[in-house]
Amino acid sequence: MKSQITNALSDFFFEYETPRQVLVRNRRVGVVCRLIQLGVLAYIIGWVFIYEKGYQSTDTAVSSVFTKMKGVGYTSEIGKERVWDVADYVFPPQGDSSFVVMTNYIITEGQNMSKCPELPGKHNCTSNKDCEGGGFKRTGHGQMTGVCVKLNTTQTCEVLAWCPVEDDRKIPDPPMLMSAENYTLFIKNSVTFPLFGVTRSNLVEGIDAEYISKCLHDPEKAPLCPIFKLGDIVKLSGFNFETIAKVGGAIGIVVDWTCNFDTDVRNCKPKYNFHGLYGNPTETDKARASVGYNFRYAKHYLEDTIQKRTLLKVFGIRIDIIVQSLARKFDIIPTLTAIGSGVGIFGVATVVCDLVLLYLLPKREFYKNMKFKYTDTHIQK
Amino acid sequence: MKSQITNALSDFFFEYETPRQVLVRNRRVGVVCRLIQLGVLAYIIGWVFIYEKGYQSTDTAVSSVFTKMKGVGYTSEIGKERVWDVADYVFPPQGDSSFVVMTNYIITEGQNMSKCPELPGKHNCTSNKDCEGGGFKRTGHGQMTGVCVKLNTTQTCEVLAWCPVEDDRKIPDPPMLMSAENYTLFIKNSVTFPLFGVTRSNLVEGIDAEYISKCLHDPEKAPLCPIFKLGDIVKLSGFNFETIAKVGGAIGIVVDWTCNFDTDVRNCKPKYNFHGLYGNPTETDKARASVGYNFRYAKHYLEDTIQKRTLLKVFGIRIDIIVQSLARKFDIIPTLTAIGSGVGIFGVATVVCDLVLLYLLPKREFYKNMKFKYTDTHIQK
Amino acid sequence: MKSQITNALSDFFFEYETPRQVLVRNRRVGVVCRLIQLGVLAYIIGWVFIYEKGYQSTDTAVSSVFTKMKGVGYTSEIGKERVWDVADYVFPPQGDSSFVVMTNYIITEGQNMSKCPELPGKHNCTSNKDCEGGGFKRTGHGQMTGVCVKLNTTQTCEVLAWCPVEDDRKIPDPPMLMSAENYTLFIKNSVTFPLFGVTRSNLVEGIDAEYISKCLHDPEKAPLCPIFKLGDIVKLSGFNFETIAKVGGAIGIVVDWTCNFDTDVRNCKPKYNFHGLYGNPTETDKARASVGYNFRYAKHYLEDTIQKRTLLKVFGIRIDIIVQSLARKFDIIPTLTAIGSGVGIFGVATVVCDLVLLYLLPKREFYKNMKFKYTDTHIQK
Repeated sequence: MKSQITNALSDFFFEYETPRQVLVRNRRVGVVCRLIQLGVLAYIIGWVFIYEKGYQSTDTAVSSVFTKMKGVGYTSEIGKERVWDVADYVFPPQGDSSFVVMTNYIITEGQNMSKCPELPGKHNCTSNKDCEGGGFKRTGHGQMTGVCVKLNTTQTCEVLAWCPVEDDRKIPDPPMLMSAENYTLFIKNSVTFPLFGVTRSNLVEGIDAEYISKCLHDPEKAPLCPIFKLGDIVKLSGFNFETIAKVGGAIGIVVDWTCNFDTDVRNCKPKYNFHGLYGNPTETDKARASVGYNFRYAKHYLEDTIQKRTLLKVFGIRIDIIVQSLARKFDIIPTLTAIGSGVGIFGVATVVCDLVLLYLLPKREFYKNMKFKYTDTHIQK
Repeated sequence: MKSQITNALSDFFFEYETPRQVLVRNRRVGVVCRLIQLGVLAYIIGWVFIYEKGYQSTDTAVSSVFTKMKGVGYTSEIGKERVWDVADYVFPPQGDSSFVVMTNYIITEGQNMSKCPELPGKHNCTSNKDCEGGGFKRTGHGQMTGVCVKLNTTQTCEVLAWCPVEDDRKIPDPPMLMSAENYTLFIKNSVTFPLFGVTRSNLVEGIDAEYISKCLHDPEKAPLCPIFKLGDIVKLSGFNFETIAKVGGAIGIVVDWTCNFDTDVRNCKPKYNFHGLYGNPTETDKARASVGYNFRYAKHYLEDTIQKRTLLKVFGIRIDIIVQSLARKFDIIPTLTAIGSGVGIFGVATVVCDLVLLYLLPKREFYKNMKFKYTDTHIQK
Repeated sequence: MKSQITNALSDFFFEYETPRQVLVRNRRVGVVCRLIQLGVLAYIIGWVFIYEKGYQSTDTAVSSVFTKMKGVGYTSEIGKERVWDVADYVFPPQGDSSFVVMTNYIITEGQNMSKCPELPGKHNCTSNKDCEGGGFKRTGHGQMTGVCVKLNTTQTCEVLAWCPVEDDRKIPDPPMLMSAENYTLFIKNSVTFPLFGVTRSNLVEGIDAEYISKCLHDPEKAPLCPIFKLGDIVKLSGFNFETIAKVGGAIGIVVDWTCNFDTDVRNCKPKYNFHGLYGNPTETDKARASVGYNFRYAKHYLEDTIQKRTLLKVFGIRIDIIVQSLARKFDIIPTLTAIGSGVGIFGVATVVCDLVLLYLLPKREFYKNMKFKYTDTHIQK
């Protein structure tokens, strides 16, 4: 019994099977099949391996972004000069990857909770019947008291609201803070590729404190400088600064980390791209359902024991820092999977050639006989 | 020498190898093997290609979300009517993809930095010894002064804190801002599939400014309208509005972009799904470790040169807009990989059939002789 | 005609092709080839299936994070004791996954919009000519009025700005809020794997309200407790608390959900990892271009009808909760793809052995004759 197993084992180990082949000496079939096989080989090597880098595994990064704006704005309303610093014009203040830079605003000062007439236009009325007491209108500012009151030359519904109500029918033009064009944005971004255990920062080799204190990002001259002028960002996104500053808009800054870790890690550097979000800035925007960007923001205070607030309708440039990452490194699994799959496709080439050989050639019967051996001869044709 | 290479090359190009096969004429084996092969073929075509769309490559999108709430709330505490507009009840104000809508609150007005007794309950004391001077308690509001003071009928530790300390032992019921049910949320979302170079907005073809000004999202009647009633969102997430408004809760709005770019890009439309976050709203929530959602928020002011603040414990509905995306498009690489892998599986079918043929059939010795040729005849059995 | 098709079909179904093989009885070739084949088999089973779990499909989760800080800080400037609670030291207040805990600050109280001298240093001047009227300096605080004014023993440019301007040349050391070390952070995180339809929360089985009210996260003793001491977080990230508290810094808390849904879903539990962001805390940080973390924040108020503000330059610990997820579950597609690809690699092994057999062995001509059959005999060598 033991010797039987040993025999079987030695048989297994000292034997080797290889398929028997017919070597078809036919120019036409030969050329066609060799070309198909060469094509498959070229595809596997050229496309899968070299172009698509099928021998590498890929990983995306977890990333962290910190931003900091710098610069001072200046506005001069009638008799009222004021400057705006970073604590005034950035929302939220703590340096998130998504934030808004105020460029225009409608200010309504000294609002307090009381009763006052609504804005003329949608809220006009002729008698108290038009103003349902206790009701709300979708575009209204408060709860209707049920009274129709005089406002200048017209009549509107009275509301319980923060009074006086904000009049946002006219957006300041030119925008209040055109000086925002000269603000600068500093982006600090670090990415970690967990699969490869690599951490990179956008302050790469050579981008030190001294360089940062002087540089300004330029797509050609200083592509790695992480300091951006707001006016440049807007221009590179395809917007006109005055337009976007007036009604607001949203811009995405894509930090693109496409890295090949088969080469030196120091070659892994970020690329910065800029594009408008929510609609194509190069088309005419009139057809779009919703352009502009704004939100309301209130500062509360107490005056003579009365709670008051200053309401700001802020128009601004919303900036989203979007980190896109794709790292590649040689890995044995995708390499062998690509090879194995390639050998499979090679098999398809053989099947195609066999079809030609056995069904299309004039001498097909001859080739059939060469290729096949039949277990019973009586049904052989 | 040259002619030798030419000969070898011409040999290579004009020759073509094809494996020699045994054609086994056996009904049982034939049917079994053909069925296995047909099964593999059906699997490859039906499952890999048609069901799983193995001929397409996939991509996920980078996305950008902007939100805007509309609506006015109304509360009426004793002798104090007030309305709440968007600047009062949305945190943060700038339209992020994750925000909180206040629905209930505990207000503590006129806090200033001084010494006052703690809340009764956990901070009760009988003598100064119970209150370690300079110490902090985990649930305390400030630094203990080391004195035990009288508070109504009981005694509690005195603390240096924002006084009076907030008493949040009783949550207002019904919630203060039940009117939040009628607020509307507008979602603006754009997605970019970098691999396919396609950008889409949730304001798809046909969703123009006029439609938006009137529509309200409904899963059946208006599935593409990007305006949502807060009450509907809560209901579609499986919550009861009054419960969630009272203690707060978190809701995820999933914007699902599942697109097939082999058809017209205009078919790529978002789907909106709603579900509760942090725990299953359909189960009894009592067993869960932590329900509700709240945070504290302070408004600072100066009264008679003394710094004071109004502290709000805000209960609210936190809404997270989650963009999920998966686009597919025909690509030659996954197609050929699937085919190659399929051919490989075909090979497995052949191996299985061979095992049957060579080891299970009665005539196995005969088939073995047909299939194999031995290089040395002396060990041939 | 009909019978012809029936015949062809019955032929097809009752026949079965299997390749004819040569069984090479050669010890050297046999052993080499069997070892290669066994290697391939071991690779496919051991590496692809067991190590890389190639029989499973993978999915990443959509996740939602809510955070809540607890604890009271205490500062004592000259004659001014005060405590800081959560509404004072967390930015933003609403419990986002990315937030800042203030640990140090430079406070500038009572700023109002007026004219005052700039900071000495970069803004020194000797005459009015050094101060360009209406101009801004990159590091300046406002708009220059064109006047050079006396400031103590030196002269600086006068600016229109929030006055007095902030003097941030000296960072308080030791940091104002060293007590921040004892603050606690509560993390609530839920993940949904859409492909597998599984939702998990970090409040897993056994982590109930009672446990949470007492526990404190410890990597070994309480790895599932979602309550973290800020001092522990800083230490586990490799930072020194006093350093990071003084100048600020950024820490990533990675919640790692690596789950295998072929086992009980209850085994799917989060792991918490901590690491410093933006630069390696274990290296000497001096060479880094940008360390520290700070932002400016203003509280506005009205005093005697004059708009004033308190400016805070906040140094703090920014915490980013990063959810990393990878779930696996058995799936037929990747299983069959792996098998198919493995069979393909098996074919490569055969090709390698054939090359040895036909080109390297002394008896290669004999084997060639065994393996190949020629369609025309006249060019047979």
